[in-house]
Amino acid sequence: MREPLIAPPGLKNVIVADTALGDVDGEAGFYHFRQYSAIELAEKRTFEEVWHLMFTGRLPDPAELAGFHAEIAAHQGIPDDVRAVLPVIAASGGERSTLAGLRTALSLLGAGFPASWGADPAVLRDNAIRIAAATPAILAALHRLRTGRDVIAPRADLSTAGNWLWMLTGSEPTPEHEAAINRYLICTIDHGFNASTFTARVVASAGADVASAICGAIGTFTGPLHGGAPDRALEALDEIGSPDRVRDWVRTKIATGDRIMGFGHPVYRTEDPRARMLREIGQKLGGPLIDFATRVEAEVVQALAELKPGRELHTNVEFYAGVVMEQCGIPRSMFTPTFAVSRVVGWAAQVLEQAEGTKIFRPSARYVGTTPPVPVPARTA
Amino acid sequence: MREPLIAPPGLKNVIVADTALGDVDGEAGFYHFRQYSAIELAEKRTFEEVWHLMFTGRLPDPAELAGFHAEIAAHQGIPDDVRAVLPVIAASGGERSTLAGLRTALSLLGAGFPASWGADPAVLRDNAIRIAAATPAILAALHRLRTGRDVIAPRADLSTAGNWLWMLTGSEPTPEHEAAINRYLICTIDHGFNASTFTARVVASAGADVASAICGAIGTFTGPLHGGAPDRALEALDEIGSPDRVRDWVRTKIATGDRIMGFGHPVYRTEDPRARMLREIGQKLGGPLIDFATRVEAEVVQALAELKPGRELHTNVEFYAGVVMEQCGIPRSMFTPTFAVSRVVGWAAQVLEQAEGTKIFRPSARYVGTTPPVPVPARTA
Repeated sequence: MREPLIAPPGLKNVIVADTALGDVDGEAGFYHFRQYSAIELAEKRTFEEVWHLMFTGRLPDPAELAGFHAEIAAHQGIPDDVRAVLPVIAASGGERSTLAGLRTALSLLGAGFPASWGADPAVLRDNAIRIAAATPAILAALHRLRTGRDVIAPRADLSTAGNWLWMLTGSEPTPEHEAAINRYLICTIDHGFNASTFTARVVASAGADVASAICGAIGTFTGPLHGGAPDRALEALDEIGSPDRVRDWVRTKIATGDRIMGFGHPVYRTEDPRARMLREIGQKLGGPLIDFATRVEAEVVQALAELKPGRELHTNVEFYAGVVMEQCGIPRSMFTPTFAVSRVVGWAAQVLEQAEGTKIFRPSARYVGTTPPVPVPARTA
Repeated sequence: MREPLIAPPGLKNVIVADTALGDVDGEAGFYHFRQYSAIELAEKRTFEEVWHLMFTGRLPDPAELAGFHAEIAAHQGIPDDVRAVLPVIAASGGERSTLAGLRTALSLLGAGFPASWGADPAVLRDNAIRIAAATPAILAALHRLRTGRDVIAPRADLSTAGNWLWMLTGSEPTPEHEAAINRYLICTIDHGFNASTFTARVVASAGADVASAICGAIGTFTGPLHGGAPDRALEALDEIGSPDRVRDWVRTKIATGDRIMGFGHPVYRTEDPRARMLREIGQKLGGPLIDFATRVEAEVVQALAELKPGRELHTNVEFYAGVVMEQCGIPRSMFTPTFAVSRVVGWAAQVLEQAEGTKIFRPSARYVGTTPPVPVPARTA
């Protein structure tokens, strides 16, 4: 037998798959979906167009886009069996378990999905669309049920971004808010081989169906080490309270070595390009929150330059994502679920790509316990 | 930046974690749980004792075992909210989706579980017991509901093996059947870093809760490339039909290069030690099916020796597992779910061990698409 390789902890910097979906260049502060800059896509295209790009490899022509919109519209409602159990799901697990509720609902929705191994690619694509298209309505319904309000159905005349705001709040979204959320959703569809994406691919590598893979990814996504919690970054702003306290707060945090939520990223050594775009969106929307946030950012950068010279620490996607979502009227408990609305498209695209291969992920572990075999002792009386 | 390592496809033979839970020596045909031979444990101990061993590292003394039995008994029923939606779950997805139903039910059951990162180990252990203890009742209820029969509650006076037979069939299990299933369940609790176990650990590595990790693992487990489908091995016996057809059937299969279900294993180069034990159990239970199965095995081995000298192919765990389950009266659609009854304990133990670490699995992928950035084209009219 070949000697086993010992991988670095967490498989850091270990290439485990080939992908044509995109990549992240953390040194250059650049990431892309297929051959296009993700930020440029966010600035120039709709969420549905980029969704089509991720699933098929091409930006749609007008006829393809119309067909794709119709496909999404056909599945953006909540299927009857899921709707029937949604009140029970909403009542279980408490306020912070909206994503656990999504996992339960999608697990039910996908119960009849065929194994991806050997399946017709058209069927898999349909399954992936069903999962991703129903996700916003399920999440919004869980929120409305949890807060004792009526569930609002999606509208065929609204975009994914517009529907999301509509179903959460029951108010017609302004074009500015819809555009802002459209950009946020696009820029967070995918981002390299993070842990939830990897989970989706491991599950799919066994030939399991699309829903199984997405349910696995959602679980990983809820893990506090995964990142993706824009509400935690806003909590830091709350903690500071008022602009005159920024300077002291930042210096105390740095002096005590506390982590500053919303700053730092495991991959980017530069400014996170998503943070830059979201800051600009926030500034265009305007208001005291974005002014406060940019002031905090400037103070952190300045204090670091003085106190820890050479240590660069930039805002990450969560920092300005939280600000923009708050500006657009999304309730804070739905910040992370908003992230899931877009990332589910990325997971689904990753699963469709993984389903083209047939190599199951089956690594090894190193046994570090007492050397066997020790005879099994007789039962004590 | 350090040059990335390119891992072998599927991470084959790559060590990604340390474990004290056990190991598989495919060359020697030996595997162990902690420091004990898994087969010896199956022959000498109960499923609950080995469950305790996996969770705590120790076989229980009588007081510990009594306490552990009480813990399991307290959680072996179906919680009210899960019970309320079980008819909808049972009606969704068709006959082959019992495991998808388990995933949905456990996702709901665990909706309020805390993140494992930073959680009290006692809480995590309680969560793990809730998941594993409720699994048999949920699976049996799904089967009963699907086949139009009343759900049978677990009994505090029966073992996990006995309850499983009781809840599926509604008949008092014979001591012989209960002992056979007890052995089967023990020997399949864990088996190295297979894909479902790895999934559970990847999810847990993000700090996610126990239910998230188990739901991910169930998804992978349903994948046809994962293995663990004892019903497929029995289908081969059905296909042959009668003993006088064995010789021709085997030779035709080998000549056409078809895979023979129930034979071959990705790790074992020898006889699978689980297959050996299960054959003996089957022979002790007796009857025409086990006689037929051993005859098929002998014919396959003999035909291979003649037609493909040097190529060893042994029965795997699925082959005799299917025979033993049929002998014990388990309906064929519940063969793979029976495997899940034991493996959920292994997954849970793996999650508890993973939760002791804090290194998230975040590997890399190699981008193989068109080189970016290509400017995003303007929309066509």
